[in-house]
Amino acid sequence: MSKNLINSVAIIGGTHGNEFTGSYLAQYWIKNPKVVQRDTFETKVIFSNEKAFYEVRRYIDRDLNRACTLSNLHNDELISHEDEVAKKLDAIIGPKGQDDLNTDFVVDLHTTTSNMGLSLVISQDNELTWMAASYLSQHFSDLKIYRWQGDEEGGFVDSFGSSGFAIEVGAVPQGVLRADLFMQTKELVHTLLDFFESYNQGMVEINRDITIYEHVALVDYPRDDKGNLTAMVHSERQDMDFKEISMGDPMFITFDGKTIVYEDSMALYGVFINEAAYYEKGFALCLAKKVIYSF
Amino acid sequence: MSKNLINSVAIIGGTHGNEFTGSYLAQYWIKNPKVVQRDTFETKVIFSNEKAFYEVRRYIDRDLNRACTLSNLHNDELISHEDEVAKKLDAIIGPKGQDDLNTDFVVDLHTTTSNMGLSLVISQDNELTWMAASYLSQHFSDLKIYRWQGDEEGGFVDSFGSSGFAIEVGAVPQGVLRADLFMQTKELVHTLLDFFESYNQGMVEINRDITIYEHVALVDYPRDDKGNLTAMVHSERQDMDFKEISMGDPMFITFDGKTIVYEDSMALYGVFINEAAYYEKGFALCLAKKVIYSF
Repeated sequence: MSKNLINSVAIIGGTHGNEFTGSYLAQYWIKNPKVVQRDTFETKVIFSNEKAFYEVRRYIDRDLNRACTLSNLHNDELISHEDEVAKKLDAIIGPKGQDDLNTDFVVDLHTTTSNMGLSLVISQDNELTWMAASYLSQHFSDLKIYRWQGDEEGGFVDSFGSSGFAIEVGAVPQGVLRADLFMQTKELVHTLLDFFESYNQGMVEINRDITIYEHVALVDYPRDDKGNLTAMVHSERQDMDFKEISMGDPMFITFDGKTIVYEDSMALYGVFINEAAYYEKGFALCLAKKVIYSF
Repeated sequence: MSKNLINSVAIIGGTHGNEFTGSYLAQYWIKNPKVVQRDTFETKVIFSNEKAFYEVRRYIDRDLNRACTLSNLHNDELISHEDEVAKKLDAIIGPKGQDDLNTDFVVDLHTTTSNMGLSLVISQDNELTWMAASYLSQHFSDLKIYRWQGDEEGGFVDSFGSSGFAIEVGAVPQGVLRADLFMQTKELVHTLLDFFESYNQGMVEINRDITIYEHVALVDYPRDDKGNLTAMVHSERQDMDFKEISMGDPMFITFDGKTIVYEDSMALYGVFINEAAYYEKGFALCLAKKVIYSF
C-alpha cells in the first residue's frame, strides 16, 4: 500500500442513471451525512450522473463507467456530457494517476438485471482492495467477488481511487428500486466504512485467501450477419449467475425454439447473464473460473 | 358484436421500444408470416415503434400507448414521433371510430417489470373481447385478467380495433428478453389466433363467467413536496401482484427503514406493483377487486 492510513473515501452512486439503487442511496447519504461519517477518515458522497438519472437512462452520450481513462481525462476535445462528468469527478476525487493526491478508496454503486445477488466487481489489483473485499466476504456470506478483465477496465469510475471496486446488485430492472437489495447495498457500504475505521485503528483481521470468480471470456448472443439477435439466453441459463456451466448445458434458444449448448470441455461459471445494458456492448454473459485467490 | 365473422386481426409489438418481447416477436412473425396465418381471416403484424426499440427507450417523445385517442389522431398540430406513429397505425389498422372499416381485433404486446405473469389488460367492454379473454383463460390456467380503468384508456394502441386487449407479461426488465416469457407470449398469441379460427368456424364454446381483477384505484409512491420519492415498495409487497392486500399489510418502506402499511378496511389486490415505467406516471401500484364477471 502507498499509505499507512486511509484518509479519504468516496461513495459514488448514479454513475448509470437508470440504476436507481445507487442514485437514491447517494441522495439519501447526501441528505443524511452522519450515517456515512466515521472518526478516522473523510467520506465524500457523489451523485455522479444526475442528468442521466432524471432521464432514466444509463447515460446521455456515452457510458460514464468506461469514460474515465487517463487519456480521456486529459483530452480537451472530449466534451460529451459524460466526458465532462468524468473530468468533474477527477477534480473532486482525483487527480487520477497521482496516488499520493487522490482518494484512497472509491466504491461505485451499480445494479444489474442479472441475478448476481450482492457482488463486487474488482478491476484493481492491490492489497487494500483485496482486504476490503475479504472483510466484506466475512460479513456477507452470500457475497460474490468477480475479478473483471473485460472491456476498458481502466475507464471505470472506481479507478479514480488508489483502491476501490464496484458493487453490483441484482436482479433489479433498470429504473426500479427493490427494497430488499437497496437495504442490502446500504448495509454493505456501511460495513465497508466500518472496515476502514477498524483498519485505521489497527483492529482488523483479514482472511487472505478468498474465493473469487476470475474473468475468462465474454460470450455474445447468436446474431445474424446484420448484427440482429437470432437467439436469447436459454431459460435454464437465465438467473444462473455464479453457477457452473459444463459441456452440453443449454446456453441460448432461438426464437423458434432450438437450443444452443455450451460446447467447451472446460467447465466455467456464468456472470452478468442477460444484463440489459450489455446487449449493445455485445455480450450475453461473461465466463469465469472459480479460484482461491491469495494476497 | 357489429360483425358476424372476424375478417382482420392485428398483432402489434414494440409499442414500447424497451419491452423487447413484443419487439422481437413482431420481427419474428414478420419474417415468418405463415406462423400467424389462418384460413378464415387476415393477420397483420406491425412492429410499431421501431425507432424507440433501436434506442431501447419506452418512447422517443411521448407514450405511444396513451397517444391514440380519436382527438389526437385528428389533431394535425401533433407532430411528435409517437403522434406520427399513431397516425400511421390509424391508416393501417384504423380508421378509429369507424367500426365497420377498422380491424376486428387488435392485440398489443407488452412486458412489465412487475411480477404479473401472463396477463391481459382489458380496456374495451364488448363481447368479442371478453370471449377471447375467456378462451385464453381456459387454455392458460395461470392467466390473469385485469380490467383497466386507469389513465387515458381511450389512447391505447389496442383501441384501434373494434375489439382487443393488451398482453402484459412479467417480470421482465426493460431491454431484456426472458426466454420463458417470450415463449409463453408467443404461445398465447398463437392460441388467440386459434380462437378466432374456431370462432369463425362456429366451433367455440366459451365460459361466460370469468374471474377478473377490476380496477379500483391508483396508489402513488410516498413523495416529498418536490415530488421526490421518500419510500419504496416494501419487500413484502414486491412481486405480490394479484395477491390480496389487507389493512395493516406493509406497502412501502422509507429509505431509513420505516414501514408504511395499507390503512383501508377494504381488502384489495395489487396489480402493476413497482412497474418501472409508472414511476414517472405517478403510481406505485394499482388496486383492484377480484370479481366474477359475466358477459
